[in-house]
Amino acid sequence: MARIAYVNGRYVKLAKAVVNIEDRGYQFGDGIYEVFYAYRGRLIDEALHFARLERSRGEIGLTAPMGEAALRVVIHELMRRNRVQTGLIYLQLTRGVAKRDHAFPMPKPRSALTLTVRPKPEPPEELSGWSAAAITLEDERWGRCDIKSINLLPNVLARDAAKQAGALEAVLFDAQGMVTEGATSSVWMVGPDNVLRTRALDQHVLPGCTRAALLADVAAEGLEFQEQAFSLEELRAAREIFITSATSFVKPITRLDGMPVGNAAPGLIASRLYARYLARLKEG
Amino acid sequence: MARIAYVNGRYVKLAKAVVNIEDRGYQFGDGIYEVFYAYRGRLIDEALHFARLERSRGEIGLTAPMGEAALRVVIHELMRRNRVQTGLIYLQLTRGVAKRDHAFPMPKPRSALTLTVRPKPEPPEELSGWSAAAITLEDERWGRCDIKSINLLPNVLARDAAKQAGALEAVLFDAQGMVTEGATSSVWMVGPDNVLRTRALDQHVLPGCTRAALLADVAAEGLEFQEQAFSLEELRAAREIFITSATSFVKPITRLDGMPVGNAAPGLIASRLYARYLARLKEG
Repeated sequence: MARIAYVNGRYVKLAKAVVNIEDRGYQFGDGIYEVFYAYRGRLIDEALHFARLERSRGEIGLTAPMGEAALRVVIHELMRRNRVQTGLIYLQLTRGVAKRDHAFPMPKPRSALTLTVRPKPEPPEELSGWSAAAITLEDERWGRCDIKSINLLPNVLARDAAKQAGALEAVLFDAQGMVTEGATSSVWMVGPDNVLRTRALDQHVLPGCTRAALLADVAAEGLEFQEQAFSLEELRAAREIFITSATSFVKPITRLDGMPVGNAAPGLIASRLYARYLARLKEG
Repeated sequence: MARIAYVNGRYVKLAKAVVNIEDRGYQFGDGIYEVFYAYRGRLIDEALHFARLERSRGEIGLTAPMGEAALRVVIHELMRRNRVQTGLIYLQLTRGVAKRDHAFPMPKPRSALTLTVRPKPEPPEELSGWSAAAITLEDERWGRCDIKSINLLPNVLARDAAKQAGALEAVLFDAQGMVTEGATSSVWMVGPDNVLRTRALDQHVLPGCTRAALLADVAAEGLEFQEQAFSLEELRAAREIFITSATSFVKPITRLDGMPVGNAAPGLIASRLYARYLARLKEG
Protein backbone atom coordinates (compact mmCIF):
# COMPACT_ATOMS: atom_id res chain seq x y z
CA MET A 1 0.00 0.00 0.00
CA ALA A 2 1.38 3.42 -0.96
CA ARG A 3 1.97 5.79 1.93
CA ILE A 4 -0.36 8.78 1.99
CA ALA A 5 0.78 12.26 3.00
CA TYR A 6 -1.14 15.42 3.79
CA VAL A 7 -0.06 18.51 1.82
CA ASN A 8 -1.85 21.83 2.25
CA GLY A 9 -5.39 20.49 2.46
CA ARG A 10 -5.04 17.38 0.32
CA TYR A 11 -4.30 13.73 0.96
CA VAL A 12 -1.87 12.52 -1.71
CA LYS A 13 0.45 9.59 -2.35
CA LEU A 14 3.80 10.30 -0.73
CA ALA A 15 5.58 9.99 -4.09
CA LYS A 16 3.42 12.86 -5.35
CA ALA A 17 3.57 14.93 -2.16
CA VAL A 18 5.42 18.03 -3.31
CA VAL A 19 6.01 21.66 -2.45
CA ASN A 20 7.28 24.52 -4.58
CA ILE A 21 11.04 25.09 -4.52
CA GLU A 22 10.36 28.64 -3.28
CA ASP A 23 8.60 27.31 -0.19
CA ARG A 24 10.52 29.11 2.55
CA GLY A 25 10.96 25.84 4.37
CA TYR A 26 13.12 24.66 1.47
CA GLN A 27 15.20 27.79 0.91
CA PHE A 28 15.54 29.16 4.47
CA GLY A 29 14.53 26.40 6.88
CA ASP A 30 11.83 28.92 7.77
CA GLY A 31 9.52 26.53 9.57
CA ILE A 32 8.89 24.32 12.56
CA TYR A 33 7.85 20.74 13.16
CA GLU A 34 6.41 18.35 15.69
CA VAL A 35 6.49 14.57 16.05
CA PHE A 36 3.57 12.79 17.72
CA TYR A 37 3.60 9.20 18.85
CA ALA A 38 0.35 7.30 18.47
CA TYR A 39 -0.22 4.16 20.47
CA ARG A 40 -3.18 2.02 19.37
CA GLY A 41 -4.87 5.01 17.83
CA ARG A 42 -4.30 7.43 20.70
CA LEU A 43 -1.85 10.37 20.58
CA ILE A 44 0.49 10.18 23.60
CA ASP A 45 1.13 13.37 25.58
CA GLU A 46 -1.07 15.03 22.98
CA ALA A 47 -1.72 18.26 24.92
CA LEU A 48 2.01 18.77 25.48
CA HIS A 49 2.81 18.34 21.79
CA PHE A 50 0.04 20.68 20.64
CA ALA A 51 1.16 23.27 23.19
CA ARG A 52 4.76 23.05 21.99
CA LEU A 53 3.69 23.28 18.36
CA GLU A 54 1.73 26.41 19.19
CA ARG A 55 4.67 27.89 21.07
CA SER A 56 7.16 27.21 18.23
CA ARG A 57 4.73 28.70 15.74
CA GLY A 58 4.31 31.86 17.80
CA GLU A 59 8.05 32.29 18.42
CA ILE A 60 8.78 32.71 14.71
CA GLY A 61 5.49 34.38 13.80
CA LEU A 62 3.95 31.75 11.53
CA THR A 63 0.25 31.90 10.71
CA ALA A 64 -1.80 29.00 12.10
CA PRO A 65 -3.18 27.00 9.16
CA MET A 66 -6.16 25.74 11.21
CA GLY A 67 -7.23 25.26 14.80
CA GLU A 68 -6.13 22.40 17.02
CA ALA A 69 -9.40 20.48 16.68
CA ALA A 70 -9.15 20.53 12.88
CA LEU A 71 -5.51 19.50 13.07
CA ARG A 72 -6.47 16.55 15.24
CA VAL A 73 -9.01 15.50 12.60
CA VAL A 74 -6.30 15.65 9.90
CA ILE A 75 -3.92 13.55 12.01
CA HIS A 76 -6.50 10.84 12.66
CA GLU A 77 -7.69 10.83 9.06
CA LEU A 78 -4.10 10.44 7.89
CA MET A 79 -3.59 7.55 10.33
CA ARG A 80 -6.78 5.95 9.03
CA ARG A 81 -5.75 6.31 5.39
CA ASN A 82 -2.33 4.83 6.16
CA ARG A 83 -3.84 2.11 8.37
CA VAL A 84 -1.46 3.10 11.15
CA GLN A 85 -2.62 2.75 14.75
CA THR A 86 0.78 2.71 16.44
CA GLY A 87 3.40 4.90 14.88
CA LEU A 88 4.85 8.34 14.36
CA ILE A 89 3.10 11.38 12.94
CA TYR A 90 5.43 13.99 11.49
CA LEU A 91 3.97 17.48 11.12
CA GLN A 92 5.77 20.42 9.51
CA LEU A 93 4.66 24.03 9.17
CA THR A 94 6.54 26.61 7.09
CA ARG A 95 6.02 30.25 6.18
CA GLY A 96 4.86 29.23 2.71
CA VAL A 97 5.85 30.15 -0.84
CA ALA A 98 7.23 33.58 -1.69
CA LYS A 99 9.84 35.20 -3.92
CA ARG A 100 13.16 34.64 -2.16
CA ASP A 101 13.99 37.42 0.31
CA HIS A 102 15.05 36.82 3.93
CA ALA A 103 12.57 39.09 5.74
CA PHE A 104 9.01 37.81 6.24
CA PRO A 105 7.10 38.23 2.96
CA MET A 106 4.27 40.77 2.78
CA PRO A 107 1.46 40.15 2.16
CA LYS A 108 1.78 36.95 4.16
CA PRO A 109 1.59 33.83 2.00
CA ARG A 110 -0.50 30.91 3.21
CA SER A 111 1.67 28.90 5.60
CA ALA A 112 2.44 25.40 4.33
CA LEU A 113 1.33 22.39 6.33
CA THR A 114 2.57 18.89 5.55
CA LEU A 115 2.16 15.63 7.46
CA THR A 116 3.36 12.07 7.10
CA VAL A 117 2.70 8.97 9.17
CA ARG A 118 4.64 5.77 9.58
CA PRO A 119 4.12 2.67 11.69
CA LYS A 120 6.35 1.81 14.62
CA PRO A 121 6.55 -1.62 16.28
CA GLU A 122 5.08 -1.93 19.79
CA PRO A 123 7.61 -1.07 22.50
CA PRO A 124 9.27 -4.03 24.27
CA GLU A 125 7.77 -5.09 27.62
CA GLU A 126 10.98 -4.39 29.47
CA LEU A 127 14.48 -3.03 28.97
CA SER A 128 16.46 -6.14 29.94
CA GLY A 129 19.04 -6.94 27.29
CA TRP A 130 18.95 -3.40 25.94
CA SER A 131 22.25 -1.69 25.21
CA ALA A 132 23.08 1.52 23.36
CA ALA A 133 26.14 3.67 22.88
CA ALA A 134 26.40 7.45 22.75
CA ILE A 135 29.21 9.77 21.79
CA THR A 136 29.79 13.31 23.05
CA LEU A 137 30.18 16.30 20.75
CA GLU A 138 30.39 20.05 21.11
CA ASP A 139 26.99 21.68 20.68
CA GLU A 140 27.25 23.82 17.53
CA ARG A 141 23.57 24.63 17.23
CA TRP A 142 22.05 28.09 17.24
CA GLY A 143 20.99 30.05 20.32
CA ARG A 144 17.26 29.26 20.15
CA CYS A 145 17.05 25.48 20.39
CA ASP A 146 13.88 25.94 22.46
CA ILE A 147 12.15 26.50 19.10
CA LYS A 148 11.51 23.18 17.33
CA SER A 149 12.66 24.53 13.99
CA ILE A 150 13.62 22.64 10.85
CA ASN A 151 17.14 24.17 10.96
CA LEU A 152 18.48 20.72 11.76
CA LEU A 153 21.79 20.53 9.90
CA PRO A 154 23.89 20.48 13.12
CA ASN A 155 21.63 17.72 14.47
CA VAL A 156 22.00 15.82 11.18
CA LEU A 157 25.79 16.08 11.34
CA ALA A 158 25.85 15.03 15.02
CA ARG A 159 23.56 12.04 14.45
CA ASP A 160 25.61 10.96 11.47
CA ALA A 161 28.82 11.22 13.52
CA ALA A 162 27.12 9.02 16.14
CA LYS A 163 26.07 6.50 13.50
CA GLN A 164 29.60 6.37 12.04
CA ALA A 165 30.86 5.61 15.57
CA GLY A 166 28.30 2.79 15.96
CA ALA A 167 26.35 4.87 18.47
CA LEU A 168 22.66 5.63 18.82
CA GLU A 169 22.89 9.26 19.93
CA ALA A 170 25.25 12.21 20.23
CA VAL A 171 25.18 13.97 23.60
CA LEU A 172 25.99 17.66 23.14
CA PHE A 173 27.92 19.91 25.49
CA ASP A 174 28.41 23.68 25.39
CA ALA A 175 31.55 25.86 25.47
CA GLN A 176 31.54 25.66 29.28
CA GLY A 177 31.55 21.86 29.17
CA MET A 178 27.94 21.60 30.36
CA VAL A 179 25.66 19.04 28.74
CA THR A 180 22.77 20.60 26.84
CA GLU A 181 20.85 17.64 25.39
CA GLY A 182 21.07 14.89 22.80
CA ALA A 183 20.95 15.66 19.07
CA THR A 184 17.35 14.38 19.08
CA SER A 185 16.57 13.72 22.75
CA SER A 186 16.65 14.97 26.35
CA VAL A 187 19.50 13.59 28.47
CA TRP A 188 19.17 12.37 32.07
CA MET A 189 21.79 11.04 34.48
CA VAL A 190 21.93 9.39 37.87
CA GLY A 191 25.01 10.42 39.83
CA PRO A 192 27.07 8.49 42.39
CA ASP A 193 24.81 10.20 44.99
CA ASN A 194 21.85 8.39 43.37
CA VAL A 195 20.24 11.71 42.45
CA LEU A 196 18.50 11.85 39.08
CA ARG A 197 19.22 15.00 37.09
CA THR A 198 18.25 16.66 33.84
CA ARG A 199 19.03 20.17 32.69
CA ALA A 200 16.51 22.92 33.45
CA LEU A 201 14.83 24.39 30.39
CA ASP A 202 16.36 27.44 28.73
CA GLN A 203 16.82 28.69 25.18
CA HIS A 204 19.57 26.14 24.51
CA VAL A 205 17.41 23.04 24.84
CA LEU A 206 14.12 21.84 23.43
CA PRO A 207 11.35 21.57 26.01
CA GLY A 208 10.88 17.82 25.66
CA CYS A 209 7.28 16.59 25.87
CA THR A 210 8.33 13.12 27.06
CA ARG A 211 10.68 14.87 29.50
CA ALA A 212 7.75 16.90 30.85
CA ALA A 213 5.49 13.85 31.13
CA LEU A 214 8.23 11.89 32.87
CA LEU A 215 8.56 14.49 35.63
CA ALA A 216 5.24 13.23 37.04
CA ASP A 217 6.56 9.66 36.97
CA VAL A 218 9.74 10.77 38.73
CA ALA A 219 7.61 12.27 41.51
CA ALA A 220 5.34 9.21 41.67
CA GLU A 221 8.38 6.95 42.04
CA GLY A 222 9.59 9.12 44.91
CA LEU A 223 13.00 9.56 43.26
CA GLU A 224 15.52 12.11 44.41
CA PHE A 225 15.63 14.58 41.55
CA GLN A 226 17.29 17.86 40.62
CA GLU A 227 16.39 19.87 37.54
CA GLN A 228 19.89 21.17 37.02
CA ALA A 229 22.61 21.17 34.37
CA PHE A 230 25.56 18.78 34.70
CA SER A 231 29.00 18.79 33.18
CA LEU A 232 30.51 16.31 30.77
CA GLU A 233 32.78 15.26 33.63
CA GLU A 234 29.79 14.53 35.86
CA LEU A 235 28.17 12.62 33.01
CA ARG A 236 31.26 10.43 32.68
CA ALA A 237 30.95 9.52 36.37
CA ALA A 238 27.23 8.70 36.10
CA ARG A 239 25.76 5.43 37.40
CA GLU A 240 23.02 5.66 34.80
CA ILE A 241 22.41 7.72 31.68
CA PHE A 242 19.24 7.63 29.64
CA ILE A 243 17.62 9.68 26.92
CA THR A 244 13.98 10.50 26.35
CA SER A 245 11.94 11.64 23.35
CA ALA A 246 8.57 10.94 21.79
CA THR A 247 10.21 8.44 19.44
CA SER A 248 12.63 6.82 21.88
CA PHE A 249 10.54 6.94 25.12
CA VAL A 250 13.12 6.08 27.83
CA LYS A 251 16.34 4.61 26.42
CA PRO A 252 19.34 3.76 28.60
CA ILE A 253 22.78 4.67 27.30
CA THR A 254 25.07 1.85 28.36
CA ARG A 255 28.30 3.05 26.76
CA LEU A 256 29.56 6.64 26.52
CA ASP A 257 32.47 7.42 24.21
CA GLY A 258 33.42 3.75 24.30
CA MET A 259 33.42 3.43 28.11
CA PRO A 260 30.78 1.48 30.06
CA VAL A 261 28.17 3.48 31.96
CA GLY A 262 27.64 1.88 35.40
CA ASN A 263 27.64 -1.87 34.78
CA ALA A 264 26.93 -1.30 31.07
CA ALA A 265 23.33 -2.49 31.41
CA PRO A 266 20.01 -0.64 31.83
CA GLY A 267 19.93 0.92 35.31
CA LEU A 268 17.33 0.56 38.00
CA ILE A 269 15.93 4.07 37.72
CA ALA A 270 15.64 4.01 33.93
CA SER A 271 13.91 0.62 34.17
CA ARG A 272 11.40 1.87 36.72
CA LEU A 273 10.62 4.96 34.64
CA TYR A 274 10.30 2.87 31.51
CA ALA A 275 7.81 0.59 33.27
CA ARG A 276 5.79 3.65 34.33
CA TYR A 277 5.89 4.99 30.79
CA LEU A 278 4.65 1.68 29.42
CA ALA A 279 1.88 1.47 32.02
CA ARG A 280 0.76 4.96 31.05
CA LEU A 281 0.65 3.91 27.37
CA LYS A 282 -1.48 0.88 28.11
CA GLU A 283 -3.82 2.44 30.63
CA GLY A 284 -4.98 4.79 27.90
CA MET B 1 6.72 35.64 -19.49
CA ALA B 2 6.65 32.88 -16.87
CA ARG B 3 9.86 32.44 -14.90
CA ILE B 4 11.69 29.19 -15.62
CA ALA B 5 13.46 27.19 -12.94
CA TYR B 6 15.85 24.27 -13.11
CA VAL B 7 14.89 21.24 -11.02
CA ASN B 8 16.97 18.07 -11.06
CA GLY B 9 17.76 18.01 -14.77
CA ARG B 10 14.66 19.72 -16.11
CA TYR B 11 13.72 23.29 -17.02
CA VAL B 12 10.19 23.94 -15.75
CA LYS B 13 7.88 26.86 -15.09
CA LEU B 14 8.55 28.19 -11.60
CA ALA B 15 4.93 27.58 -10.58
CA LYS B 16 5.50 23.88 -11.37
CA ALA B 17 8.99 23.67 -9.91
CA VAL B 18 8.51 21.26 -7.03
CA VAL B 19 10.38 18.88 -4.76
CA ASN B 20 9.11 16.02 -2.63
CA ILE B 21 8.22 16.90 0.96
CA GLU B 22 10.78 14.30 2.09
CA ASP B 23 13.59 16.16 0.33
CA ARG B 24 16.05 16.59 3.20
CA GLY B 25 16.38 20.25 2.34
CA TYR B 26 12.73 20.67 3.36
CA GLN B 27 12.72 18.59 6.53
CA PHE B 28 16.24 19.18 7.88
CA GLY B 29 17.70 22.18 6.06
CA ASP B 30 20.21 19.56 4.91
CA GLY B 31 21.67 21.50 2.02
CA ILE B 32 23.72 24.44 0.84
CA TYR B 33 23.30 27.28 -1.61
CA GLU B 34 25.13 29.87 -3.64
CA VAL B 35 24.09 33.16 -5.21
CA PHE B 36 25.81 34.34 -8.39
CA TYR B 37 25.55 37.82 -9.83
CA ALA B 38 25.52 38.05 -13.62
CA TYR B 39 26.35 41.33 -15.28
CA ARG B 40 25.51 41.55 -18.99
CA GLY B 41 25.72 37.79 -19.33
CA ARG B 42 28.94 37.32 -17.40
CA LEU B 43 29.13 35.71 -13.93
CA ILE B 44 31.02 38.03 -11.57
CA ASP B 45 33.72 36.53 -9.32
CA GLU B 46 32.69 33.23 -10.85
CA ALA B 47 35.72 31.22 -9.74
CA LEU B 48 35.27 32.37 -6.13
CA HIS B 49 31.62 31.34 -6.09
CA PHE B 50 32.27 27.93 -7.64
CA ALA B 51 35.10 27.33 -5.15
CA ARG B 52 32.86 28.26 -2.21
CA LEU B 53 30.05 26.06 -3.51
CA GLU B 54 32.49 23.18 -3.74
CA ARG B 55 33.79 23.84 -0.24
CA SER B 56 30.28 24.00 1.32
CA ARG B 57 29.34 20.80 -0.49
CA GLY B 58 32.41 18.98 0.82
CA GLU B 59 31.98 20.23 4.41
CA ILE B 60 28.61 18.48 4.77
CA GLY B 61 29.41 15.54 2.49
CA LEU B 62 26.93 16.13 -0.33
CA THR B 63 27.39 14.33 -3.63
CA ALA B 64 28.21 16.62 -6.58
CA PRO B 65 25.32 16.45 -9.08
CA MET B 66 27.59 17.36 -12.01
CA GLY B 67 30.93 18.98 -12.74
CA GLU B 68 31.56 22.72 -12.77
CA ALA B 69 31.56 22.99 -16.56
CA ALA B 70 28.14 21.32 -16.79
CA LEU B 71 26.83 23.54 -14.01
CA ARG B 72 28.01 26.60 -15.90
CA VAL B 73 26.06 25.39 -18.95
CA VAL B 74 22.91 25.01 -16.82
CA ILE B 75 23.30 28.52 -15.40
CA HIS B 76 23.72 30.12 -18.81
CA GLU B 77 20.89 28.09 -20.32
CA LEU B 78 18.63 29.16 -17.45
CA MET B 79 19.60 32.79 -17.99
CA ARG B 80 18.85 32.43 -21.69
CA ARG B 81 15.44 30.85 -21.08
CA ASN B 82 14.57 33.61 -18.62
CA ARG B 83 16.02 36.30 -20.90
CA VAL B 84 18.10 37.58 -18.00
CA GLN B 85 21.51 39.07 -18.74
CA THR B 86 21.97 41.07 -15.54
CA GLY B 87 20.57 39.48 -12.42
CA LEU B 88 20.89 36.93 -9.67
CA ILE B 89 21.23 33.20 -10.04
CA TYR B 90 20.17 31.23 -6.98
CA LEU B 91 21.51 27.67 -6.75
CA GLN B 92 20.59 25.17 -4.05
CA LEU B 93 21.90 21.67 -3.44
CA THR B 94 20.40 19.27 -0.89
CA ARG B 95 21.03 15.69 0.17
CA GLY B 96 17.96 14.56 -1.75
CA VAL B 97 14.85 12.56 -0.91
CA ALA B 98 14.88 9.85 1.76
CA LYS B 99 12.69 8.44 4.51
CA ARG B 100 13.03 10.86 7.43
CA ASP B 101 15.96 10.00 9.71
CA HIS B 102 18.62 12.46 10.83
CA ALA B 103 21.78 10.54 9.88
CA PHE B 104 22.86 10.56 6.22
CA PRO B 105 20.68 8.07 4.31
CA MET B 106 22.26 4.92 2.92
CA PRO B 107 22.36 4.16 0.08
CA LYS B 108 22.90 7.79 -0.83
CA PRO B 109 19.94 9.31 -2.66
CA ARG B 110 20.61 11.52 -5.67
CA SER B 111 21.37 15.01 -4.35
CA ALA B 112 18.77 17.57 -5.41
CA LEU B 113 19.83 20.57 -7.50
CA THR B 114 17.52 23.52 -8.07
CA LEU B 115 18.18 26.91 -9.65
CA THR B 116 16.24 30.09 -10.21
CA VAL B 117 17.17 33.33 -11.95
CA ARG B 118 15.82 36.82 -11.60
CA PRO B 119 16.72 40.14 -13.18
CA LYS B 120 18.35 42.95 -11.22
CA PRO B 121 18.55 46.57 -12.37
CA GLU B 122 21.98 47.89 -13.40
CA PRO B 123 23.91 49.28 -10.43
CA PRO B 124 23.93 53.10 -10.07
CA GLU B 125 26.96 54.95 -11.46
CA GLU B 126 27.87 56.35 -8.07
CA LEU B 127 26.87 56.24 -4.42
CA SER B 128 26.03 59.93 -3.94
CA GLY B 129 22.62 60.29 -2.36
CA TRP B 130 22.70 56.76 -1.01
CA SER B 131 21.65 56.18 2.58
CA ALA B 132 20.90 53.02 4.53
CA ALA B 133 20.31 52.11 8.14
CA ALA B 134 21.45 49.05 10.05
CA ILE B 135 20.58 47.70 13.46
CA THR B 136 22.77 45.57 15.71
CA LEU B 137 21.68 42.21 17.10
CA GLU B 138 23.25 39.37 19.02
CA ASP B 139 24.49 36.64 16.69
CA GLU B 140 22.38 33.57 17.49
CA ARG B 141 23.51 31.46 14.55
CA TRP B 142 25.20 28.09 14.76
CA GLY B 143 28.94 27.49 15.08
CA ARG B 144 29.64 26.75 11.42
CA CYS B 145 28.58 29.88 9.55
CA ASP B 146 31.54 29.32 7.20
CA ILE B 147 29.29 26.74 5.51
CA LYS B 148 26.76 28.44 3.25
CA SER B 149 23.92 26.24 4.45
CA ILE B 150 20.18 26.73 4.06
CA ASN B 151 19.75 26.76 7.87
CA LEU B 152 18.83 30.42 7.62
CA LEU B 153 16.12 30.90 10.22
CA PRO B 154 18.31 33.14 12.46
CA ASN B 155 19.21 35.21 9.39
CA VAL B 156 15.52 35.43 8.46
CA LEU B 157 14.60 36.62 11.96
CA ALA B 158 17.46 39.15 12.00
CA ARG B 159 16.60 40.54 8.56
CA ASP B 160 12.96 40.83 9.51
CA ALA B 161 13.89 42.66 12.73
CA ALA B 162 15.95 45.05 10.58
CA LYS B 163 13.03 45.56 8.19
CA GLN B 164 10.63 46.24 11.07
CA ALA B 165 13.10 48.90 12.28
CA GLY B 166 13.22 50.49 8.81
CA ALA B 167 16.78 49.22 8.31
CA LEU B 168 18.47 47.44 5.43
CA GLU B 169 20.67 45.06 7.40
CA ALA B 170 21.26 43.60 10.84
CA VAL B 171 24.90 43.65 12.00
CA LEU B 172 25.54 40.70 14.31
CA PHE B 173 27.83 40.58 17.33
CA ASP B 174 28.92 37.62 19.43
CA ALA B 175 28.82 36.96 23.19
CA GLN B 176 32.12 38.84 23.56
CA GLY B 177 30.67 41.91 21.85
CA MET B 178 32.74 41.39 18.70
CA VAL B 179 31.09 41.96 15.32
CA THR B 180 30.83 38.80 13.24
CA GLU B 181 29.08 39.91 10.03
CA GLY B 182 25.74 41.07 8.66
CA ALA B 183 22.76 38.73 8.45
CA THR B 184 23.40 38.51 4.68
CA SER B 185 26.66 40.42 4.14
CA SER B 186 30.25 41.03 5.23
CA VAL B 187 30.78 44.13 7.40
CA TRP B 188 33.63 46.63 7.01
CA MET B 189 34.49 49.73 9.03
CA VAL B 190 36.89 52.67 8.82
CA GLY B 191 38.05 53.77 12.26
CA PRO B 192 39.00 57.23 13.54
CA ASP B 193 42.58 56.19 12.63
CA ASN B 194 41.42 55.91 9.00
CA VAL B 195 42.26 52.21 8.94
CA LEU B 196 39.85 49.96 7.03
CA ARG B 197 38.99 46.74 8.86
CA THR B 198 37.00 43.58 8.31
CA ARG B 199 36.99 40.45 10.45
CA ALA B 200 39.39 37.65 9.56
CA LEU B 201 37.71 34.47 8.35
CA ASP B 202 36.87 31.78 10.85
CA GLN B 203 34.03 29.32 11.39
CA HIS B 204 31.69 32.08 12.60
CA VAL B 205 31.55 34.01 9.33
CA LEU B 206 30.86 33.19 5.71
CA PRO B 207 33.90 33.60 3.45
CA GLY B 208 32.40 36.34 1.31
CA CYS B 209 33.24 36.20 -2.40
CA THR B 210 32.74 39.94 -2.87
CA ARG B 211 34.81 40.43 0.29
CA ALA B 212 37.62 38.34 -1.24
CA ALA B 213 37.47 40.16 -4.55
CA LEU B 214 37.49 43.52 -2.80
CA LEU B 215 40.76 42.75 -1.00
CA ALA B 216 42.56 43.24 -4.32
CA ASP B 217 40.83 46.60 -4.77
CA VAL B 218 41.82 47.60 -1.24
CA ALA B 219 45.45 46.88 -2.10
CA ALA B 220 45.21 48.66 -5.47
CA GLU B 221 43.81 51.76 -3.73
CA GLY B 222 46.75 51.68 -1.32
CA LEU B 223 44.41 51.78 1.67
CA GLU B 224 45.57 51.08 5.18
CA PHE B 225 43.88 47.81 6.02
CA GLN B 226 43.70 45.29 8.87
CA GLU B 227 41.97 41.94 8.58
CA GLN B 228 40.90 41.88 12.20
CA ALA B 229 37.74 41.66 14.28
CA PHE B 230 36.30 44.80 15.86
CA SER B 231 33.91 45.34 18.73
CA LEU B 232 30.46 46.82 18.65
CA GLU B 233 31.92 49.77 20.54
CA GLU B 234 34.54 50.30 17.84
CA LEU B 235 31.83 50.02 15.20
CA ARG B 236 29.83 52.77 16.91
CA ALA B 237 32.87 55.07 16.69
CA ALA B 238 33.45 54.29 13.00
CA ARG B 239 33.90 57.03 10.40
CA GLU B 240 32.52 54.74 7.75
CA ILE B 241 30.67 51.43 7.74
CA PHE B 242 29.80 49.46 4.64
CA ILE B 243 28.60 45.99 3.80
CA THR B 244 29.47 43.77 0.86
CA SER B 245 27.85 40.77 -0.80
CA ALA B 246 27.26 39.46 -4.30
CA THR B 247 23.80 41.02 -4.25
CA SER B 248 24.64 44.31 -2.53
CA PHE B 249 28.18 44.94 -3.93
CA VAL B 250 29.50 47.76 -1.69
CA LYS B 251 26.75 49.46 0.32
CA PRO B 252 27.47 52.21 2.87
CA ILE B 253 25.60 52.09 6.16
CA THR B 254 24.85 55.69 7.05
CA ARG B 255 22.88 55.13 10.27
CA LEU B 256 23.55 52.51 12.94
CA ASP B 257 20.90 51.86 15.59
CA GLY B 258 19.39 55.25 14.79
CA MET B 259 22.64 57.22 15.13
CA PRO B 260 24.48 58.78 12.16
CA VAL B 261 27.67 57.07 10.97
CA GLY B 262 30.30 59.73 10.21
CA ASN B 263 28.43 62.54 8.46
CA ALA B 264 25.56 60.15 7.63
CA ALA B 265 26.54 60.02 3.95
CA PRO B 266 28.57 57.50 1.88
CA GLY B 267 32.21 57.75 2.95
CA LEU B 268 35.27 58.34 0.81
CA ILE B 269 36.68 54.85 1.12
CA ALA B 270 33.39 53.08 0.36
CA SER B 271 32.93 55.37 -2.65
CA ARG B 272 36.39 54.60 -4.00
CA LEU B 273 35.87 50.86 -3.57
CA TYR B 274 32.46 51.06 -5.18
CA ALA B 275 33.96 52.84 -8.18
CA ARG B 276 36.61 50.09 -8.48
CA TYR B 277 33.92 47.44 -8.21
CA LEU B 278 31.91 49.10 -10.98
CA ALA B 279 34.96 49.46 -13.20
CA ARG B 280 35.69 45.77 -12.73
CA LEU B 281 32.11 44.94 -13.76
CA LYS B 282 32.32 47.01 -16.92
CA GLU B 283 35.82 46.04 -17.99
CA GLY B 284 34.60 42.44 -18.27
